[in-house]
Amino acid sequence: MKMVLAAIFLIFSLFTFSQASVVDFCVADYTAPNGPAGYSCKSPAKVTVDDFVYSGLGAVGNTSNIIKASVTPAFDAQFAGVNGLGISAARLDLAPGGVVPLHTHPGASELLVVVQGTICAGFVSSDNTVYFKTLKKGDVMVYPQGLLHFQLNGGGTQALAFVSFSSANPGLQILDFALFKSDFPTELITQTTFLDAAQVKKLKGVLGGSG
Amino acid sequence: MKMVLAAIFLIFSLFTFSQASVVDFCVADYTAPNGPAGYSCKSPAKVTVDDFVYSGLGAVGNTSNIIKASVTPAFDAQFAGVNGLGISAARLDLAPGGVVPLHTHPGASELLVVVQGTICAGFVSSDNTVYFKTLKKGDVMVYPQGLLHFQLNGGGTQALAFVSFSSANPGLQILDFALFKSDFPTELITQTTFLDAAQVKKLKGVLGGSG
Amino acid sequence: MKMVLAAIFLIFSLFTFSQASVVDFCVADYTAPNGPAGYSCKSPAKVTVDDFVYSGLGAVGNTSNIIKASVTPAFDAQFAGVNGLGISAARLDLAPGGVVPLHTHPGASELLVVVQGTICAGFVSSDNTVYFKTLKKGDVMVYPQGLLHFQLNGGGTQALAFVSFSSANPGLQILDFALFKSDFPTELITQTTFLDAAQVKKLKGVLGGSG
Amino acid sequence: MKMVLAAIFLIFSLFTFSQASVVDFCVADYTAPNGPAGYSCKSPAKVTVDDFVYSGLGAVGNTSNIIKASVTPAFDAQFAGVNGLGISAARLDLAPGGVVPLHTHPGASELLVVVQGTICAGFVSSDNTVYFKTLKKGDVMVYPQGLLHFQLNGGGTQALAFVSFSSANPGLQILDFALFKSDFPTELITQTTFLDAAQVKKLKGVLGGSG
Amino acid sequence: MKMVLAAIFLIFSLFTFSQASVVDFCVADYTAPNGPAGYSCKSPAKVTVDDFVYSGLGAVGNTSNIIKASVTPAFDAQFAGVNGLGISAARLDLAPGGVVPLHTHPGASELLVVVQGTICAGFVSSDNTVYFKTLKKGDVMVYPQGLLHFQLNGGGTQALAFVSFSSANPGLQILDFALFKSDFPTELITQTTFLDAAQVKKLKGVLGGSG
Amino acid sequence: MKMVLAAIFLIFSLFTFSQASVVDFCVADYTAPNGPAGYSCKSPAKVTVDDFVYSGLGAVGNTSNIIKASVTPAFDAQFAGVNGLGISAARLDLAPGGVVPLHTHPGASELLVVVQGTICAGFVSSDNTVYFKTLKKGDVMVYPQGLLHFQLNGGGTQALAFVSFSSANPGLQILDFALFKSDFPTELITQTTFLDAAQVKKLKGVLGGSG
Repeated sequence: MKMVLAAIFLIFSLFTFSQASVVDFCVADYTAPNGPAGYSCKSPAKVTVDDFVYSGLGAVGNTSNIIKASVTPAFDAQFAGVNGLGISAARLDLAPGGVVPLHTHPGASELLVVVQGTICAGFVSSDNTVYFKTLKKGDVMVYPQGLLHFQLNGGGTQALAFVSFSSANPGLQILDFALFKSDFPTELITQTTFLDAAQVKKLKGVLGGSG
Repeated sequence: MKMVLAAIFLIFSLFTFSQASVVDFCVADYTAPNGPAGYSCKSPAKVTVDDFVYSGLGAVGNTSNIIKASVTPAFDAQFAGVNGLGISAARLDLAPGGVVPLHTHPGASELLVVVQGTICAGFVSSDNTVYFKTLKKGDVMVYPQGLLHFQLNGGGTQALAFVSFSSANPGLQILDFALFKSDFPTELITQTTFLDAAQVKKLKGVLGGSG
Repeated sequence: MKMVLAAIFLIFSLFTFSQASVVDFCVADYTAPNGPAGYSCKSPAKVTVDDFVYSGLGAVGNTSNIIKASVTPAFDAQFAGVNGLGISAARLDLAPGGVVPLHTHPGASELLVVVQGTICAGFVSSDNTVYFKTLKKGDVMVYPQGLLHFQLNGGGTQALAFVSFSSANPGLQILDFALFKSDFPTELITQTTFLDAAQVKKLKGVLGGSG
Repeated sequence: MKMVLAAIFLIFSLFTFSQASVVDFCVADYTAPNGPAGYSCKSPAKVTVDDFVYSGLGAVGNTSNIIKASVTPAFDAQFAGVNGLGISAARLDLAPGGVVPLHTHPGASELLVVVQGTICAGFVSSDNTVYFKTLKKGDVMVYPQGLLHFQLNGGGTQALAFVSFSSANPGLQILDFALFKSDFPTELITQTTFLDAAQVKKLKGVLGGSG
Repeated sequence: MKMVLAAIFLIFSLFTFSQASVVDFCVADYTAPNGPAGYSCKSPAKVTVDDFVYSGLGAVGNTSNIIKASVTPAFDAQFAGVNGLGISAARLDLAPGGVVPLHTHPGASELLVVVQGTICAGFVSSDNTVYFKTLKKGDVMVYPQGLLHFQLNGGGTQALAFVSFSSANPGLQILDFALFKSDFPTELITQTTFLDAAQVKKLKGVLGGSG
Repeated sequence: MKMVLAAIFLIFSLFTFSQASVVDFCVADYTAPNGPAGYSCKSPAKVTVDDFVYSGLGAVGNTSNIIKASVTPAFDAQFAGVNGLGISAARLDLAPGGVVPLHTHPGASELLVVVQGTICAGFVSSDNTVYFKTLKKGDVMVYPQGLLHFQLNGGGTQALAFVSFSSANPGLQILDFALFKSDFPTELITQTTFLDAAQVKKLKGVLGGSG
């Protein structure tokens, strides 16, 4: 019995010894060119389980700052194993009063799960409806792709959430940074947002923008 | 010769008389359910050339208003023929000084071509770099998906541009409308944007927002 | 100032009053037909924030059973808001010794984050390499689409993980259920797996399979 | 042992009894609306193995005609099981001298395998290079999406090929039929192809075109 | 106030300083390998606004030729900024009597907007229906992916249209060039199109085909 | 006539002489980096018709082995021409009593056509329904993506089938090999499959697994 079944090895061995194959996964090789679909693939021979495990979300983020919050990404640029797999993650820590300011992910929908504390989370749709709710531990919320959204800890205790994205490279555009931590000329900002110049200059001063 | 070749008709006729087919196109049937990929398809028998032609972008938009600009969409909701085809369009009219305020299209990249006048056009990337330039007639600019962008007529003459999108349903989120023409509570806005409450209330007053 | 800016309302109102639009999201309408891309969309007018929030993952799953584990899905069939958004989630509870048996998700990659305890997690690739590791709290692991994988609580304390998927409808094929909780004829199983008939019958007896 | 393991049934039963799910497949329901992604799904309860098996390609096609060839499709319009799965098939029978005239599949790449006889098969690329070769039994050829291609039996024996497509709905545009078996006005054809009017009228006469 | 808010800079700086990232866009690097999804990405540090602006469509095309027409592409091969963004463009100039001969884009749907003059535009569907109409200034027409279509200036004035595509690399197969400006053997052409050999040879003579 | 029409050459020549283009196809260059979308593209200048033709499926597979079967792939790793085209193929030879053991393709749906003999073919869905049927010559069966399936020759004559996939790189995970021809620790297997350790060790012995 052993002898005959062993022959299976020979039959399928053509799969094993075929040319270097684009296989089940494409762990990012940060030293080779990248393209619209992601990074080049690391040689399968060099891939280990550690390419599929990311430990960078394990530590509590530092929330001793003005927004009393911290965001830690595990996108393809940080977590090589998700390259090309259409998924990625991030960790959100919010101290009481902490906030993740209005932002979008240009390339992905987001799913948030509250692990600790409560979080007031919301987004605005194309027809200017604001959907928001205070989420408790274990609640899940989804933000459709590309829409402005925010997270806020209105509770009295530290909050923790894990979020995931429908892309390995969701992108992140923080509204305040786009406007006030860039060299976006103040005149162009006031013309395209109707904000007062004084307001723009004040926030540029704080966030370090120029122009 | 005529007789023999005519037999071709019989051979391929199975394609012609097969069951109602999901064919080359899917003109929107606004009366049937829609789904994530778009509207249901109109019966091919009812489709005419007019389903593939849209005349709503032919007229000059009315720019006698405060932003001195007008945007006219030809998305799948207006132009049934583009349903499911991954493309759509819009017309931009900008009087001198006219502006299309900062906005995003959550579901598509955009390509703009200047047909008349000059337009200062720009976008902000995830790393807070502002890319902008004054475009002249015939210039084409592309805005990557989901990023904040704007158009401004800084010239002395009426400007016209046609834009197209990499989706039949690109969406449109205008920053000022999301914030100030919605019922987004002022306190939440100030917390998630760091704008002053007075600034928020002023613009809400103008644009008709509540909360 | 108020009067002039208010005119913006008129300019963009064409977006607001256009035909029922395929918008930013497509909350599942379980009463209408579904298709390859997901469920039909609920009328936007009936959508509320609760469509985007799912509370079914909040409760600890019941692990008082033989596998000492519990899996609670938040796929599009349970969580209407993720329909068409390319993302979904599930909750895993594993008591000490608990196991989620070998299974695949035919339609999605999976990302697991350990929230409590430790979990031995692994998958097998097409070239029969087994990648597994004991994950601690905060560790993230990704399983490429369609590959056999498992989770096991080898630690002494209750474990909790949240997983997300790169599809709103990832599917779930549990190996033991496919073989032994189905009406898969025993003779066909033995022929296509080389398992002994006695082994097959034993597990069918336990899991309730027939044939 | 039997009692304890049986408890697994209870744990995972939530998957079994959840709401009507968009599952692993979406067998076409020809009586419900279709959309850009394909037909609506038949209720899983009504699906049988026969939905996944198509016997319409089993019979030799009738090649007693002028092109001495026959094409039999198994697209989603004929084969309900492939709906939404991104694949479909067809059967080609070519008597000696038989030909499948120049045509394109607007929505798919094609892969041909010769099962009997020899077939001269070719396509033209965007840069007007003609790639063609006489294929023998067992040879496989791929035609990139949307390009003009043909099959011809230059051998002395009946030929048979099976082809498959990278879409459940590849479409089929036969050049001669588009031009000469339609109501394409002769004047427009001559203007857009530079063919002589006499040539156009001759082939229209044969194929039954008008205009 | 300034001091505290400034701390935001520190919090999010991990996004700024993370590894070279696959970001919002992928401007084509023509010197690196390309793949099925497009060209490799230029280093973000070298990207400027000019990568997103293309001026090659600004000049009127030369229509002093037999077809009295000119087509100028802005595909990813010419316009590096559209690489990977699913959109591209072209400019069409047609003198009175000018024609863009029957052609297909194997990889994209097309949307045409008439900017000047009138254009008779049409396409043929898989079921051999011809959809055509004379478009006036401002009219938009869509051609579903991969179908034969044409543009013709039947009016008395110069016409101009801008077209866009649902792909950065739509491809272009001009029917006459595929047949008569290639080395497609005349015998194969006559066999696969039923055109007379004399007709084929005549047009090959004109267009420079061989074989 | 010849002189005037010849001018067409000049008009469209810009397409011909434009920069190295990502064109209609992307024949695999196995010496350059690969990425999530497939291999890098071979220079178009080096592409010949032989890149689109694969002869490796022409020979009868060797079925003089214990499973009395042979599987020969024509994936992108073997058949350079299918790279990026979303389709690939394989050949199945089954002697009487031959079997292709339970397996999945993590990245593709599969379509099988029986060319010779009879084949009992089946798959198991996520809800543990087994769909199987004995197929005769000319029958086609489709296996939805990622599900366990098998082929078995229960007839008295040699059987031959060609299969195609909805991806150039479908992957292949053979259940027995994943479990018993790998270094999957026996204890982990028994814990995650409920198979008896003796059964696991027996099959590992036969197939060469360790652990």
